[in-house]
Amino acid sequence: MMAQKIITMSHGNGGRLMHELIDVLRVKFSNRILNEMADAAELDIKGNRLAFTTDSYVVKPLFFPGGDIGKLAVFGTVNDIAVKGAKPLYISLAFIIEEGLDFLTFERIAKSIQEASRKAGVFVVTGDIKVVERGSADKIFINTAGIGVIEYKGRISSRARKEDAIVINGSIGEHGLAILNARENLGFESSIKSDCRNLNLEVKRCLSKSRKIHVMRDLTRGGLATSLCEIAKSSSLGIEIDEESIPVRKSVQKACDILGFDPLYIANEGKFVCFVSAGDAEKVRRAMSPRARIIGRVTSQHKGKVYLKTRIASSRILPMLESDLLPRIC
Amino acid sequence: MMAQKIITMSHGNGGRLMHELIDVLRVKFSNRILNEMADAAELDIKGNRLAFTTDSYVVKPLFFPGGDIGKLAVFGTVNDIAVKGAKPLYISLAFIIEEGLDFLTFERIAKSIQEASRKAGVFVVTGDIKVVERGSADKIFINTAGIGVIEYKGRISSRARKEDAIVINGSIGEHGLAILNARENLGFESSIKSDCRNLNLEVKRCLSKSRKIHVMRDLTRGGLATSLCEIAKSSSLGIEIDEESIPVRKSVQKACDILGFDPLYIANEGKFVCFVSAGDAEKVRRAMSPRARIIGRVTSQHKGKVYLKTRIASSRILPMLESDLLPRIC
Repeated sequence: MMAQKIITMSHGNGGRLMHELIDVLRVKFSNRILNEMADAAELDIKGNRLAFTTDSYVVKPLFFPGGDIGKLAVFGTVNDIAVKGAKPLYISLAFIIEEGLDFLTFERIAKSIQEASRKAGVFVVTGDIKVVERGSADKIFINTAGIGVIEYKGRISSRARKEDAIVINGSIGEHGLAILNARENLGFESSIKSDCRNLNLEVKRCLSKSRKIHVMRDLTRGGLATSLCEIAKSSSLGIEIDEESIPVRKSVQKACDILGFDPLYIANEGKFVCFVSAGDAEKVRRAMSPRARIIGRVTSQHKGKVYLKTRIASSRILPMLESDLLPRIC
Repeated sequence: MMAQKIITMSHGNGGRLMHELIDVLRVKFSNRILNEMADAAELDIKGNRLAFTTDSYVVKPLFFPGGDIGKLAVFGTVNDIAVKGAKPLYISLAFIIEEGLDFLTFERIAKSIQEASRKAGVFVVTGDIKVVERGSADKIFINTAGIGVIEYKGRISSRARKEDAIVINGSIGEHGLAILNARENLGFESSIKSDCRNLNLEVKRCLSKSRKIHVMRDLTRGGLATSLCEIAKSSSLGIEIDEESIPVRKSVQKACDILGFDPLYIANEGKFVCFVSAGDAEKVRRAMSPRARIIGRVTSQHKGKVYLKTRIASSRILPMLESDLLPRIC
């Protein structure tokens, strides 16, 4: 049986099947740092706490409303470092280019990376370029890895605590829909733009307001729902969220209604959640951003599960993303 | 004119055209650390000197005599850190997988990564998985980034000094030929195996013998000749090497003669050169490895150029690798 098992697009969507692949790696590489399974690893090098992370970017199309692969490659990695409670400092930049890509596209992407890295305050310090034959890649793939320094006095991990409040910094679902719209020419109103942006400054403001922030997570592949499922699982606690409190733009809700998508599962590139002791939640929310909302709480009931209280006051369990909703959105 | 310029396979071979692409990036991202253009960046984080590097691996075929893409992805990055005079500690691991790859191949590669990382003494601490459609990648690409700590009391840079001796740790050309042989079924004797291995222990022994090591470089894409050209250029000094002193296995020389290749330009994955004050050269050579040789010296003549003294006592300039000798060898 195993011999015939192949890897499918669904293994890359951030959902349940991807966790099957990740589990292969977790078993092989098991170590205290990796086992945390955070967006960024926390390293201790000679008494300095560093955050270290990597992501490859294969987004299609390369340019989309609100961003492009270069901007995504910088901010995605910067954000993974930021939500570890760290100040991003340095990034690496590795290109895999399909033979035939025109120089101007390469230069346009390089310029976008330049602007994004300036905005986020990080330096590109090392890199790599590989070129493969036509048909062996899709125009250009980018990998970035990043290093930041953790100065936060509290401790950010993958484990929320009982009674934590969950704060989100804004509305969900924009990035995934913007990509889909650009790729498939669905013709939704152009107001749906990717939310692609750096979170390090927002995160910094939050950290300055409370030492009781326990988990932060940016809501990329798999969306808000999958991130919350991961946190419920790694915390062995339950999560309850209120549908009504979750910000969703009208244009996004409308597009989701037409397409049969749930915004809770759509990827974002400028949204994060913060799990903080309930007493500090309102302070953190105010510091975070004007559109920030408290959307739920952590409970000791229904361990490992996420409950959504719907608008009509019913309640349902949110599973991890299962099917292949939107491939190659980052 | 620029609008029609496209990126070709030769832009990825480590030679002159790749430097054209790199120059685009150097201009955009110019900073003190990047401008060093070393295999690994040297970072100072709160008084700790760290080495940070990245490489993507697109080797074809995935498995070849002496190694595979997983082993290469670990040792390649470990070696870039080592030749910066650093002790490799942590690596990241990012996969881009083509839909349809079988699970067993993925597991076999993961196992190879596990063995290689144990051998080199590094921990995989963070990672990423992306899956793209059939025809949008070639089976699997791997990116690793790595962090090491620089404990060397001397200073390794890209600048050699006048009168430095050049020491190499063994014979050249094996990796590139092993890949070509495996890919094209050339049927050379199976004795040509990739030299793919970790250099961190050899480097450590060298560092312990001299504080006057000025440059180290692993001899990957573009081979020994291209690495020396880069160092001559960045040092604004001349380099002279003796053809007779450069170790080349008979099987490699024979294959090169048949194919019309020059072993000086063929990639290695377990070879490095060390530029060290002449007085310490013999000590370093002995510590390095049984097959290590002193192959040349740095001069203040013919600045920026590499001269090869041939076996028949003539002398010629070695240019950077120009044409597309062997694509996708790492």
